[in-house]
Amino acid sequence: MVTDRPVGRRPGDPETTRQAILAAARTQFGERGFDRATIRAIAADADVDPALVIYHFRTKRELFVAAHELPVDPGAILAAIAAMPPATYGEQITSMYLGRFAAPGSPTFSLLRAAATNEDAAAMVRGFIHTTLLEHGTPLITGPDPQLRLELVASHLIGIVVAREILGLPELRERPLQDIVAVVAPVIQRYLQGD
Amino acid sequence: MVTDRPVGRRPGDPETTRQAILAAARTQFGERGFDRATIRAIAADADVDPALVIYHFRTKRELFVAAHELPVDPGAILAAIAAMPPATYGEQITSMYLGRFAAPGSPTFSLLRAAATNEDAAAMVRGFIHTTLLEHGTPLITGPDPQLRLELVASHLIGIVVAREILGLPELRERPLQDIVAVVAPVIQRYLQGD
Repeated sequence: MVTDRPVGRRPGDPETTRQAILAAARTQFGERGFDRATIRAIAADADVDPALVIYHFRTKRELFVAAHELPVDPGAILAAIAAMPPATYGEQITSMYLGRFAAPGSPTFSLLRAAATNEDAAAMVRGFIHTTLLEHGTPLITGPDPQLRLELVASHLIGIVVAREILGLPELRERPLQDIVAVVAPVIQRYLQGD
Repeated sequence: MVTDRPVGRRPGDPETTRQAILAAARTQFGERGFDRATIRAIAADADVDPALVIYHFRTKRELFVAAHELPVDPGAILAAIAAMPPATYGEQITSMYLGRFAAPGSPTFSLLRAAATNEDAAAMVRGFIHTTLLEHGTPLITGPDPQLRLELVASHLIGIVVAREILGLPELRERPLQDIVAVVAPVIQRYLQGD
């Protein structure tokens, strides 16, 4: 069943279209980095209309989340946390992030490993983190120097993931997550809402 | 000029001996990890007496520092900091660590990159960090849960190196080190000397 379409050659099955867009997105993000990859180029690569990419994935950031099968959208988590009492931000971010992204087998690790050895992958991860923090992290911050402090929050949580799951430092590896959250959350809170 | 020696076949030039020990150490640390590599096995691999390894490098930890050409010995830094006023620990550790180990081109990066993709390298780095913290970090800590808090200090500093030099997050990358130290030092201080 072939239909007339003004742009693109993929008709019919939305799942086929979706998969073609995801494959094109992985290629474009990998080759160009997050910032320089465009919805337009991804659509062209998948041979679909750009409007169809937006229909399926809404934003470039959300397309990245889907293309890399992240367990949750970090931007959506930050947006949800912004609706909670500010005094709980540190604990929410720490437990959500360590609970979801640092779980063994999470695609977070393959992204971090790739970034550690390949500048294209690093550019991809850098652009995604930067955009996520800029769009969804800023409302969580009070006080001076918000971007620096958001990056320090990200770097501490990334460092815990590296130390716990990649290096395997013994206390971080063996302690239940709630013990770690109890010690780390006040520090994250301080970065977000401190002086 | 060949001399009679009871063990080993390398006579003469101490620099040649030293280089043979360093090469054997890199092999043993890389293959067995820090914990399972022994002075005895490294000496056997270099075909020298174990006493000569200790004469040149004193401890397995210091041999690791030399073999991987770390810019300074993190254990010696921690020991020097322990002699300073406790209220300055956080600032000293943060500025020394970020200034020396996070400098572009530091061998720290090749170790971290190797650890990110290879479990043998991860075991090597893990054992070295754990031993260094255990031997030289503990005196810097007051309060409960010292090992967990030392590992959180290490993980935050490692995370900053990853975010600044490997991922290249823009604020961390572009800001002078002293700006970053000013914001991070109180957090490190809190881990070391907080409740």
